[in-house]
Parts: sequence; C-alpha cells; structure tokens
Amino acid sequence: MLIVMEHGATQEQIHAVENFIREQGFDAHISQGELHTIIGAVGGKIIDEREIQLLDGVREIIRISTSYKLASRAFQKEDTIIKINDVTIGGNQIAMIAGPCTIESYEQMDETAKALSDVGIKILRGGAFKPRTSPYSFQGLGEEGLKIIRRVADKYNMLVTSEVMQISQIPMFMKYVDILQVGARNMQNFNLLKELGFINKPVLIKRGLANTIEEWLMAAEYVLSGGNREVILCERGIRTFERATRNTLDLSAIPVVKQLSHLPVFVDPSHATGLRDKVAPMSRASVAAGCDGLIIEVHNNPPKAVCDGAQSLYPEQFAKLYDDLKAIANVIGRSI
Amino acid sequence: MLIVMEHGATQEQIHAVENFIREQGFDAHISQGELHTIIGAVGGKIIDEREIQLLDGVREIIRISTSYKLASRAFQKEDTIIKINDVTIGGNQIAMIAGPCTIESYEQMDETAKALSDVGIKILRGGAFKPRTSPYSFQGLGEEGLKIIRRVADKYNMLVTSEVMQISQIPMFMKYVDILQVGARNMQNFNLLKELGFINKPVLIKRGLANTIEEWLMAAEYVLSGGNREVILCERGIRTFERATRNTLDLSAIPVVKQLSHLPVFVDPSHATGLRDKVAPMSRASVAAGCDGLIIEVHNNPPKAVCDGAQSLYPEQFAKLYDDLKAIANVIGRSI
Amino acid sequence: MLIVMEHGATQEQIHAVENFIREQGFDAHISQGELHTIIGAVGGKIIDEREIQLLDGVREIIRISTSYKLASRAFQKEDTIIKINDVTIGGNQIAMIAGPCTIESYEQMDETAKALSDVGIKILRGGAFKPRTSPYSFQGLGEEGLKIIRRVADKYNMLVTSEVMQISQIPMFMKYVDILQVGARNMQNFNLLKELGFINKPVLIKRGLANTIEEWLMAAEYVLSGGNREVILCERGIRTFERATRNTLDLSAIPVVKQLSHLPVFVDPSHATGLRDKVAPMSRASVAAGCDGLIIEVHNNPPKAVCDGAQSLYPEQFAKLYDDLKAIANVIGRSI
Amino acid sequence: MLIVMEHGATQEQIHAVENFIREQGFDAHISQGELHTIIGAVGGKIIDEREIQLLDGVREIIRISTSYKLASRAFQKEDTIIKINDVTIGGNQIAMIAGPCTIESYEQMDETAKALSDVGIKILRGGAFKPRTSPYSFQGLGEEGLKIIRRVADKYNMLVTSEVMQISQIPMFMKYVDILQVGARNMQNFNLLKELGFINKPVLIKRGLANTIEEWLMAAEYVLSGGNREVILCERGIRTFERATRNTLDLSAIPVVKQLSHLPVFVDPSHATGLRDKVAPMSRASVAAGCDGLIIEVHNNPPKAVCDGAQSLYPEQFAKLYDDLKAIANVIGRSI
Repeated sequence: MLIVMEHGATQEQIHAVENFIREQGFDAHISQGELHTIIGAVGGKIIDEREIQLLDGVREIIRISTSYKLASRAFQKEDTIIKINDVTIGGNQIAMIAGPCTIESYEQMDETAKALSDVGIKILRGGAFKPRTSPYSFQGLGEEGLKIIRRVADKYNMLVTSEVMQISQIPMFMKYVDILQVGARNMQNFNLLKELGFINKPVLIKRGLANTIEEWLMAAEYVLSGGNREVILCERGIRTFERATRNTLDLSAIPVVKQLSHLPVFVDPSHATGLRDKVAPMSRASVAAGCDGLIIEVHNNPPKAVCDGAQSLYPEQFAKLYDDLKAIANVIGRSI
Repeated sequence: MLIVMEHGATQEQIHAVENFIREQGFDAHISQGELHTIIGAVGGKIIDEREIQLLDGVREIIRISTSYKLASRAFQKEDTIIKINDVTIGGNQIAMIAGPCTIESYEQMDETAKALSDVGIKILRGGAFKPRTSPYSFQGLGEEGLKIIRRVADKYNMLVTSEVMQISQIPMFMKYVDILQVGARNMQNFNLLKELGFINKPVLIKRGLANTIEEWLMAAEYVLSGGNREVILCERGIRTFERATRNTLDLSAIPVVKQLSHLPVFVDPSHATGLRDKVAPMSRASVAAGCDGLIIEVHNNPPKAVCDGAQSLYPEQFAKLYDDLKAIANVIGRSI
Repeated sequence: MLIVMEHGATQEQIHAVENFIREQGFDAHISQGELHTIIGAVGGKIIDEREIQLLDGVREIIRISTSYKLASRAFQKEDTIIKINDVTIGGNQIAMIAGPCTIESYEQMDETAKALSDVGIKILRGGAFKPRTSPYSFQGLGEEGLKIIRRVADKYNMLVTSEVMQISQIPMFMKYVDILQVGARNMQNFNLLKELGFINKPVLIKRGLANTIEEWLMAAEYVLSGGNREVILCERGIRTFERATRNTLDLSAIPVVKQLSHLPVFVDPSHATGLRDKVAPMSRASVAAGCDGLIIEVHNNPPKAVCDGAQSLYPEQFAKLYDDLKAIANVIGRSI
Repeated sequence: MLIVMEHGATQEQIHAVENFIREQGFDAHISQGELHTIIGAVGGKIIDEREIQLLDGVREIIRISTSYKLASRAFQKEDTIIKINDVTIGGNQIAMIAGPCTIESYEQMDETAKALSDVGIKILRGGAFKPRTSPYSFQGLGEEGLKIIRRVADKYNMLVTSEVMQISQIPMFMKYVDILQVGARNMQNFNLLKELGFINKPVLIKRGLANTIEEWLMAAEYVLSGGNREVILCERGIRTFERATRNTLDLSAIPVVKQLSHLPVFVDPSHATGLRDKVAPMSRASVAAGCDGLIIEVHNNPPKAVCDGAQSLYPEQFAKLYDDLKAIANVIGRSI
C-alpha cells in the first residue's frame, strides 16, 4: 500500500501517518518527492484503507497487491486445465456445454441430449432449481430433475452441469452433477463459495450483473482458497444503460481475464442477449475473442419450453452454429 | 400486454400472433392504427413475452401491468405504518436507526447504545454475521453477537435490527431481533425473501447495487405475497461509472418510490458514501428529499472499529447531525 | 402513442386526457381493458409526452413509432451500399480502415500507408485536429495534416478518412477527405450533423460513450434527413462500471443495429480497448459478430507515436491480424 | 507517476523501465519492496502512461498528480466567490437561478420574470438556441431571444444566464448575457471551453451525462487556464441503468466536489428528473447536501410551454419551494 500525502502536508502529519501504520504492524518507507511525500506500507495485516484516508494530510491510498493471489497468473503461469473423464477444459481446447434452461421431463432431456450428442457435445446443462422473479412461476423439478439429467447424460456418455443455489444443496449436487454452477446472483454469496472450496468437483462461476472483473476473480479466489483448484469463470453480460439488449455482453473481459488469470473463461451468450437470433453471432464472436468454452441453451422444442424458450436454439440451428465455431477456432489455432 | 406489429405486417402474421396468444389463454383485441396494428392481450397466464417477440411481423411487446401488485399505491393508497412497541415507522414520522457496523463486544455495544439512547434513538443496529470479500477477515460474532445486542437494547429500551444472511438463520433471528434486514447482495435471493414472507416481524430490504426500482419493489412483493405486510425499503447507493464515491446514492429514488408504493423508504448514507465526512450532508439531503427513515453507522470509538470505522460517526457528530435532521424535518412538516 | 390510464381512473379523467390529445391534433381511440383503459393517440404533431404523463389518472405513456425513420429497416429493407471509386462499403464485403491516430509528418504517413497498401488496405485514416483533454498537448497539424494524408493516399491509390470537429471545417474537409468522421463526443452535436446532411460524401458516425443505440440511429437520421444517404455507424465502446478496460466494447450492438437499420456498422477496437494486445482479439470478435468494417490504428513506429502509440499495432502485427480476419469472414460467408 | 513492477520482474526489466522513463526526461527513484519493486518517476513531461504499461514486467501505472491544478483546493484554499452587481455566488450565500427552458416571447418572459422578481430572484434563465433531437422541433428564437431576455431582466434588475452552443456565438452572448452556460453535451467541447477562458464573464459548466467528477473539474481547468477564474459547476444528473428517472441526480457529487475544489457547485434538478413533482424534493435535498446554487425551470404557464413544460414549476409552486429552501439553508447556517 502506498500513502500519497497532500502537496503541503506537514512533518507532523507525515509522522502521524507513519506511526499509525507502524501500529498496525506495517513497515513504513518514506520517499520525499518533489511534489508529494509517499509512504510505502509493507507487511502489515489487512486493514481498511479508509482509516488512513481520513488522517490529516493524506491525499490518496493506493493498493498495490491485488486482492486475489491463487487466481492470478503471477501465482500460476500455465493455464489451468481440468480433465473430467475424456473431456478437457482449458488450454488449447474449447469446451461446449449445451442443453435447456430447465429440466422439464425425461423425454425433453432425452431428445435434446440425443441431438447434442449426435453432433459431438460432451457436457449437458439443465436447471433443477429455478428461483424466479415471480413466486407463481415454475420453480424447477428439484432433485427429481437432477436424477433425470444424470440418467440421460449417462445414456449418451455426457457430463452434467447444473446450478447449485445454496449450501444445503451441495451434497445432493455431488451425487448427480459433474460441474457445479454458481449463478450470477450468487457470485458474492461468500458462504456458498467457501463451501464449494471444499468439494472435489469443478465449479463454474458466472459473473454478476454488476460485478467488476476484479470482484469476479475474488469470487474464484474464495473457492480456490478452500483447496478446490478447478474453477471455471463464465461471462454472461453486465448491466449498463443500454436498453436494446437485455445485458451488455462484455467480450473484452475475455482477453483481460486471460492475461490476469490462469483460469478458463467461458461465455454464456444465451442469457446475455436473451434472444435466439443474437446467440449465434455472439457465440462466434466469443470464440474469436479467445474464450475457452461456451454454454448455449438448446431445446428440442423451443416454443414449448417452460422457460427461456425465446433464447433457446433449435437443435439444427445449434448444429450449424457448431460447425462455424469449429472453423473459427481453427483460424486462431485452437480446436473444439 | 400490447403487441405492436411491424409497419408492413401481413394479415397472416397478425392472425398468427392472435392465434398464439389465444392458445395461451388470452383474449385478443385488435386495433388497426394508421401505421401499426396493435393487439391487446388480456387475461392470460404469465408468459415469457420474448416468445411473442420472435413471431414474424412483431415489432415490440409492451407490458402494461407492473410485476408488483401488493407493493403498489394502486393496491393500497395510504402509507404503510408499522408499529413496534412505542416506535412508529412510516407516515409523518421519520425513524432513525443507528449503531455500529459489527457487534464486537458487550462494552462496545453498551457504550454506543447509551450514547444513542441519550439523544433519543430507539432502534439499534449491529451486524452479527459478516461474510467478507476476504476469507481471512473477521466474520462476525454470530449468535453470541445477537445475544449481546438484544441484552444491550433491552437495557436502554431500544429495538434491534440486524442482517439475516440465509434461511437457516431465520429462527435464530426471530429470538433476538425486531426488524430483520436483507442485505443488498441478497435482494434477489428469492428463497430467502419467500421465507421472510411467513414471519411476523418487519423486514427491511436494501436495494441491490445494480437493481432497478422495479426489481426492488418486486423483492418487496415476494415478502408481501407470503402474508407479511411489514416491509421497509432502504436505498444504499447504486453502481455507476463514477469512481469518486464508493456508490452513487440515488436520492431521486425516494420521491419515485413514494409515488409508486405505500411502503416506507429509508436511506443508508453510511454504506453509500463509505466516508464519515460525506454521511452528514447525505443524511440531511435524504430527509429533505422525503425519506421515511435513516440507518446511520455510529461507533463509540470509530478508529478502533473492527469494520467500516471510516464511515462510522462519532457519537457527538451523530448528536449534532440529529439536531439538524430534526430541524429539516420540521421545515417539510414532518417530525423525527 | 398509447396512454395507459391508472387502474381506477375515472371517466372524467379519461375524458380530460382524450380532450387534451384532441387539442394537440391527435385522433383518440379508446379501448377499455379489464384492468386498464388505453387511449391510442394517432396522427398529431410531435409533443412532449411528459405533458400527458402529468394529467390525472395517467399511468404510463408508451411511444410506438421510433424516433428515426430513414435509418430504419422498415424504410429500406436492403443494406445500404456505398461505393467510392473501387471501394465498396456495406453488403457482403467487409471494409478495412487503418492508419495512425494522428498525422505527424509526411514520412510517418508514407511509411505507414505503404505498409498498409502492401497488404491490400484501401482506406487510410489519420487525425488532423486533436482537441485534447490537456491544453498543453499536441493539437494536430490542421490543414497541413490533411494535405499530407491526401498526398500519401493518392500515391498509394487509397481513400482518406479523418475526423471533422466543427461546422467551419467542413469545406476544408471536402477538399481532402473521402469519408468524414464524426467523433464520439460530437455524436449529439446536432448542428454539425445537420450540415453533414447537405454534403455529398459519406459520413461515419461514432457512437457516443454514453449513448443508446436508439440515440445513435437518431444521430444518423439527422444526416440522412438532410439528403445525404451515405452514413456509416461505428461502435467504439461505451462507459460502464468496469474499470479493467478503458471502455466496454458493445459487440452485441452489431446484430441489434443490423436488424433495426440498413446502415453499415463498423467497429473501432483500438479506442475501445486502448491497449495494443486487446486489439487483435476484439477485431476478430467484431468480424465474427457480423460487423461491416473495422477501423484499426496502425503506426509505422508505435513507440514513437505522438499519440495513442500504446493502442497502435505494428504493421507486421496488423498484417497477421488481417489474414485471420479474412479467414473468419470466410467462415461466415463474407469477404474482406 | 509510480510504476509498480510484477512480482517476479527481472533486473533487466526494471532497468529497461528506468531507462525508458529517463529518456522521457523523468528522474527515477527505485524502491524495492518485499513483493514489488516500485519506480517513482518525477519531473518529466506529460506522457501517455500506456506506453510504459506495455513494457515487460510492468504491472500497473499509478498517476499521483491530478490532471487539474487551478481548479483544486490545493491551489486555492478559500472558496471562489463571484460578484456580479449586487449578486454574490459562492461562499455562504446560496444563489438561485430561475426561468423558462426557452425564451418564447416578450410576454412570456415578462410575466415569468415579474413573478420571480417578486419573490426575490436575481438571476433569470432562458434558452435562445435549442438544438433538439428532432430536426423538426422548435430551435429557439436565436439573437432575438437574447434581446428579449436582456430587456426583461433589465426591467426587473435581474442578471441573465443562457446557454452558448458554439464559439461563433460568444461575441453575441457577451452583449446580452451575464453568465454563459455550457451545456452537458458540450462539457468536453475543448475548443469552446478554451475560448471561454479568454472572456471576462462567469461561465457555468454543466456536468456531462457520462462524465466523471474528475473530467468535470478538468473541463473547468480548461476555462481557468485561459485566465477566466469565474467558473461555476452544475450537476444535472448522470446516466445509469435506472429507468424510472430520466437521469440519476448525483447529489453526493456536491460534498465530493466541495472537498476537491474551491469552485461553486450548483444543481439543476429540473433537467435531472424531468418531472415537475420531483423538482421540489430534489431541490430541498440539494440545499441540504450543501450546494451553492440551484437552477430551476419556472414558466408563467407550463401547459403552454414550447419545451419542457412538464418539468417547469408554476410560479406559485416555486414561491412555496423557495420558502422551504430558505428554511433549510438556515438549518445548515447558510442563507439564500
């Protein structure tokens, strides 16, 4: 931490700051500049920097160390690569997750999974718990849904991913699911993240609607610090003033995160745009921008989908898109 | 719901839309304008409007009914007034909640509460569970903390408010706390909100950092729809591009919400600004803008506070501010 | 325009609204719904809808017609295609504009243009007027700069684009420049836009940092309504809460605008990201998302660039990127 | 400027950075921390910090000096106080500007000014040039309007303020207007600001819709650096995700700017909220938050106003509000 003093700060003010940070266990290095005196504070415990900001003569506090460590490239130079059975996530390979918003029935999952499996998809998604903005909407099949998706995935030799909503559901998810998703609204549910640090399955963390990249990496840090090193990040749009799209998909987050962190970065173009006809262009753009995977909503019969049918692709649309994505991956020297 | 068709929409397209909405149980009223045909859809079940948006020839879907009912002025014209013992929240009276960010010890709570009680404050705040951005930070005293705040509040004849983090904590909070707070990050934790609809104590819902006023009222609706009609809203700043303040306190939300809803609206200037010297001006502005209450962080010894000391007022600062607030309330014909 | 009345609006209130809109020259169509009475107002002059919103019993005003007409797909179904000499902008072809931020000298422009021309670039960019945030920074070479870029472009048989800052500069730009750029800060300089409607050269309008897609199309409408039908739109990032990138490049604006409008949409990844190593991934993503052109900053010697060197590509980086972009265009059935 | 090196930066990388900044004319002070080496760069010319950010081993660049000097409290400790005839702006006095959005006719201005003068208002506002989003809307009376407002103001012994749109209008405004306004869309029209630095009348700068407080102070710096020290700042709402209000009035900007700068800060609650019934609460809140002045739209006959009637107060509403504002000013020890 660097403490920049005001232009005309007095020696008394400088000493007061020095003493304060020493009391907190820091070493203080004073460097007198032409305009400003700067006090470097090294080695103390984590403190609320606003405490110092309120001292007389202090102009600005500058944090130097990032809040995350294990998630940073400085900590681990090579990309994190996650292997589950014959599926690889991270590295040169781009992974594809597809499936409906919600698990509705065995037939729906079976038909959808068959279509996806036929084109080569290895990871099946589907929601079992759906807390909705209206208390009267369909709330998901619950554990029954998880049993269905597991059964279908096994039939087609696929992996399962589904969103876990609260700590009490973790044991149930461990039975049926291969990759546990944390939804955007739970990105700063620190208690849940902490518990997910103790499991031995990959965790996919969606970026919160109004969360910075730094906060997102800090959410990953919560899981990593518990011992679980298999974390996947997933961009799904941020909230801005623009009203023509549901959210603004922040694709520049991909190269930024790839530079700051070794963790794989996925994109969910279905939730970001909310409309089927925007999913294909944004999927192509995501791969071109360097993402490590995509989560795309596909439904065997979108007009009959219980939820989010409007953003679900038809299986044949998905198959066509999948071919395009492979070709784009090829251009940038990667494979899907 | 109104469905506006494209300028050159064909009769087939119009019929297709009409049929679709009739299938969903709506009545369809067609009105042919000069430029656009508009189809009014009345009486059906809740559907995902994007389903219709994707039909050929449809230009735009316009929702008419708000998503909330019980929270609206249309449902209840008079202000909701909540009475707990001798304290009144809502109506002409402006309520004051004060206390430290975190419950640290009996002594800290006792000293702070005494100072607050001396100037006439009737509601004491203090956090017992503090999920922090870093897993190594102080996480709160838990139930022990709730016992302390209850004991101290009883000594000074005060009410207690504290933040409940998850469903499993509700029974514990019911034992010690008079007003249960829902934090900004939990504003869309629908499972938690739903459970809070079944209790018989007031619930204070902080606005999420990136949530619209409509979403905030919808969160209130979740609690109201369970049968609990004692809901308090609390503005605490939204996330914008501005970096000079921690959050942007949205004071125009006060007159907007007062018009749309009968629920009392509070403001938390401490969390919004994050710095002690901004708390007083923003508190005064909140009262002048018409808020129904304030939550202000006060600590008996801010430099020694375990958390958020930088935004906590000294008891004597608070006493001075409190006098100003009473005078401003008086100007607009209200009392504190 | 639709006027939605409150749930319990009285007949008097409904009549008052009806009379008001008739006085303004509208026809009024009343349709009594189960919950709400809706008054359709057709054919009047443009009025400030807030006038109606303040009438008693009015709940909401809904605009139906967009503010832009000439820019809309409803007005013109086929893509606008602009031809300048042997260069085509719009349609299946993706156009490339490249060059330095600022025109510094004949040598700089000549070296850069030669490198660009060698790989096949047909449109050269360079700024001559640079109003900077600091009054002491380099302000551009002015007309001298425009002479240089024209001379160099003619040597390599290229077109010239440069940013016009104010009305008084238009005649000068008409002498030297083939495509006149309007910068993001001038996107709502309506006087300038209006004048650009009277010239017979294409105008490229960058999206303002905080402007919605609708406002951006309205800016185009200003130029179109003067008679100049050769308008190009250019996305260059919007301002959001995210701080890790200079701006948030809104690539989902591409498919949205392509659906709403027939105008070509370009992307400027250099200004959006502000850093050289983010330019390539975002350029690839733009093409994959369906843009009609790119503007990329390239400098013969970025470390010596007078401005924005940090976001300028080296000529050899650009050549490599250009190959990738051609391959991606190919995947989606387009050509560069 | 401080250059923070990566955790594992090599000695070669550190030397390369040192050499680079020395070449740019800076002194380099190296301080080896436990985790990071930090290089202080002092005394060089202004450079684009991204140049350094792209060097190998550099982690982050931290600017220390603010971009503005003359506008800062460090440069001038005491509040700027502007005196025009018998009117004082800044200091303990709170100034009031009122009048219609647009100058429509002598009668309209005379009636409005009389009502305002009767309650004690000394500064009259009114727009003469109105570039509107639609080219077909009323564009203002131009110089004729300025003559009217001057004549009316002289009759009632008032000052005149009006918005200047471009450099070429400055001489005309100097003839009729006492305080020249710069609109939100022109806040970064640096050429205009520079010219306004050379005049000898006060300039009021509205904050841009998407501009940070730092950028706003930098706009003031442009005027100040030309020699004109009479600059007034005016907050008028920023663009956020919230849709229930036209803009989000950022009242916390008031105490922030008062701390950073000695310039007076006004608030325009009429444009920020856009609706008459929100103007009074936000005006009261502005005074309570510590603003130095208000600009409020008042029209002798709002329903007949040519523009923005919906946000204009009736003279009698304004008179009532004015009394409230005086009482609130009194509470905080100021006077109107």
